[in-house]
Amino acid sequence: MSETDPASTAAVDAAMTGAADAAPALATTSPVERARWLRSIADSLDADAPRLVPLAADESHLPVPRLTGELVRTTFQLRLFAEAIERGEYLRATIDHADPGWGMGPRPDLRRMMRPLGPAAVYAASNFPFAFSVAGGDTAAALAAGCPVIVKAHPAQPGLSRAVATRVREAMQASGAPRGAFGLVEGLEAGRRLVLHPALTVATFTGSLRGGRALFDLAASRPVPIPFYGELGSVNPVFVTAAAAAARPDAIATGFAASMTLGVGQFCTKPGVLLVPRDAGLETLVADAVRASSGGPMLDERIRDGFFAGLRQLTDRDDVEVLTGDPTAAGIPTPTLYATDAATLLAHPDELLEEHFGPAALLVRYGSPGEALAVAHALDGQLTATVHGEGDDPDAARLVDVLTEKAGRVLWGGWPTGVSVTYAQQHGGPYPATTAPHFTSVGTASIERFLRPVAYQDMPDDVLPPALQDSNPWHLPRTVDGAFVAAPSVDQDAPE
Amino acid sequence: MSETDPASTAAVDAAMTGAADAAPALATTSPVERARWLRSIADSLDADAPRLVPLAADESHLPVPRLTGELVRTTFQLRLFAEAIERGEYLRATIDHADPGWGMGPRPDLRRMMRPLGPAAVYAASNFPFAFSVAGGDTAAALAAGCPVIVKAHPAQPGLSRAVATRVREAMQASGAPRGAFGLVEGLEAGRRLVLHPALTVATFTGSLRGGRALFDLAASRPVPIPFYGELGSVNPVFVTAAAAAARPDAIATGFAASMTLGVGQFCTKPGVLLVPRDAGLETLVADAVRASSGGPMLDERIRDGFFAGLRQLTDRDDVEVLTGDPTAAGIPTPTLYATDAATLLAHPDELLEEHFGPAALLVRYGSPGEALAVAHALDGQLTATVHGEGDDPDAARLVDVLTEKAGRVLWGGWPTGVSVTYAQQHGGPYPATTAPHFTSVGTASIERFLRPVAYQDMPDDVLPPALQDSNPWHLPRTVDGAFVAAPSVDQDAPE
Repeated sequence: MSETDPASTAAVDAAMTGAADAAPALATTSPVERARWLRSIADSLDADAPRLVPLAADESHLPVPRLTGELVRTTFQLRLFAEAIERGEYLRATIDHADPGWGMGPRPDLRRMMRPLGPAAVYAASNFPFAFSVAGGDTAAALAAGCPVIVKAHPAQPGLSRAVATRVREAMQASGAPRGAFGLVEGLEAGRRLVLHPALTVATFTGSLRGGRALFDLAASRPVPIPFYGELGSVNPVFVTAAAAAARPDAIATGFAASMTLGVGQFCTKPGVLLVPRDAGLETLVADAVRASSGGPMLDERIRDGFFAGLRQLTDRDDVEVLTGDPTAAGIPTPTLYATDAATLLAHPDELLEEHFGPAALLVRYGSPGEALAVAHALDGQLTATVHGEGDDPDAARLVDVLTEKAGRVLWGGWPTGVSVTYAQQHGGPYPATTAPHFTSVGTASIERFLRPVAYQDMPDDVLPPALQDSNPWHLPRTVDGAFVAAPSVDQDAPE
Repeated sequence: MSETDPASTAAVDAAMTGAADAAPALATTSPVERARWLRSIADSLDADAPRLVPLAADESHLPVPRLTGELVRTTFQLRLFAEAIERGEYLRATIDHADPGWGMGPRPDLRRMMRPLGPAAVYAASNFPFAFSVAGGDTAAALAAGCPVIVKAHPAQPGLSRAVATRVREAMQASGAPRGAFGLVEGLEAGRRLVLHPALTVATFTGSLRGGRALFDLAASRPVPIPFYGELGSVNPVFVTAAAAAARPDAIATGFAASMTLGVGQFCTKPGVLLVPRDAGLETLVADAVRASSGGPMLDERIRDGFFAGLRQLTDRDDVEVLTGDPTAAGIPTPTLYATDAATLLAHPDELLEEHFGPAALLVRYGSPGEALAVAHALDGQLTATVHGEGDDPDAARLVDVLTEKAGRVLWGGWPTGVSVTYAQQHGGPYPATTAPHFTSVGTASIERFLRPVAYQDMPDDVLPPALQDSNPWHLPRTVDGAFVAAPSVDQDAPE
């Protein structure tokens, strides 16, 4: 890691120089211009699907139908972000007119809006070859905000990464984006140099706790520290109350097995821990459903080896049983279900609540609602937490209260996999789910990660950015003297 | 630092235990309840002004009229934040109804809102004994958000800190706040233990670059890192164009001298660098105005010694002149103005752009608009940057563009000291101005630092928090299916 690789150095320096040069130009582009780039990228990727999807399948071992759907999600996301910035709420334009009678003393004219942070690094994940990779959510959000993007490609998918990067670059050039607004670098050392580069202003990462924490530590150690949005790890606990276990045991068992094994268990939202009432009869049903599920080849050898190494530690324990699966196998994993008691979990939370990235989960038997609550209290930060309750179920409501303190998204029924890209989505959570609990990495609110506020004081109208000018030429919703004012309707001569 | 002081340990542990116990109760209080606490604190401080102001004057060496005004600002701030949370925009309630026709596949019902992070540490500053101390902006914002607060008192103002803390505690108890929602700890070791305490979720700091960076590094080094909002340092450059220098030289000279020496130069927004066109005749006027200004005793000996030590480094340089002041004196400082050329500044930016906390500044002569722009490009992150231009002044507009990349607040004319507490205010900026460029530490938006989003998926209405229930019992403005919906008007039976 510490020796210098001249090729990496040159590639990172060249990409960063381009990004830094492009940043001021990007910062003054209008949302309408950037929306055009995002739609152009989406169109280009959709058009190239017949070539990109097989390439993704080859490099990820994921099935073609799943990847086809993921590309739909990815281009939908680009277009949704285009719409969101055109509407302009993301700018949060706020105008306080001068007020000589302001309660603490005369107030100057102050106008505040969001502006792009500057060059952004995006560390691509391999488990979503499209949606969390080169043209995925982080890239879409950063470009939507007006930040130049340098993607660090995932090493398992070099061909797909380059192909998508070429589409992105061509589409952006064709739709008028400045050169240098998008770049791609490859390799471990390039990734390390990137986060330390003086011109970088923000970085995002989706991946392992170890890798993400190492990058977070580098970002914090810089002479000029930068925000680092890492999504690191989550076991996404699911709590089943006695009422739910009695009412719909089969649906819970099959639903859980399907969610846990979806994508060979390689989702950051995979439910990894299932809390069930002891003696409710759910254990056998769940084990049967997991046994009936399919495994499949994992994304790459490193992930597969890590998965089996993690399972060995569970299998070796006296206080954990294997209900189904063959954790000693190598190669293609079979869905594996472990079981233990809540008391054991509470005695060894660090070891038993570790994430296993792949088709494995731990069923935990609890004896009373109080014991289930104790497990909820013992959890680290999570991306998601799910409660299966029934109607007027006080046990479930109490669990929701505690899990709200722990997770970014709390589900009632259903399963945490399948993260919808919407306005209200929250994909984040307290550490180690993420390194930045204030933000989401999915949904339109993810654009906020790439923005910082600037206020202008007593600035002449013609020097102000359009978003803050009196005539509101971009037809934005704004907050004026503390009151929200909806966007004026756009007339015929709407500006670019 | 490393040895254990049992008293500090016990005090921090007791305060943190109280805060952690109170956090879940605070998280479920309504904005209306917390607004009552904030107003109760404001009333209590106002009532005790005749005792608190002299105590502050005694421990800060600041004049009584200034401290009287600062207390007005502080209680205004508490009441403004009370109003802001009652209006409820800060919750950013967002509802996406289930949509089977959503473009990427069926969407569940998703509802997102802001929730308090949890126990917050506030490191008090000494230069605003009221407004940035025990009951200052950080405390007001954290309580408004619903976070328990533990203040680390500034060691220079122990009597005032305890007196204000007592008022805060009494007012909160009288208005129904949970025990443990507010605490005070004292001493260097308590400060260090506080930021490392496992139950802490967020910290704020206003002070020196060295002290702030040390705490930031501790916050980032924790097993569970936490957000750390440090406001560390800024030289708040002021650029005067040739047109402005010609149009109003006297007003610029006297305005600058007044802002630079206000509060004995002990403001984070003190203009520390003044860029003037060479040979415009401004230099003598500015030097005369600074010479005619008064100094005064500094906040404490540590700050005074640091100020003189910093000046010695400037005075010893061959490439910097002393225009007025006696930098070799000890005791009460005289306002001191240095001068150098832009070329010298550009050759030694790190040494010459260091902040000097006290009544000193550096006048920098530039030869051309391009040279002034080069200085703007060379700046580190700043809290503020000011441009004095005239009418249609292209030099000034170009400076505003570059300074927008560098600062949290950009002023046209006027002076950066005197930070108004408003909706649009931005007191923040890129490092080293702050460690968290996304946020402000002044104004109603400062509440955001203490919040994180949570989304609920398919949650029954009666399990949802009131802010997200269908009937909108708190009468909040909300975003519904992507469109902003204003707050419904409150009828007679408005809820608590």
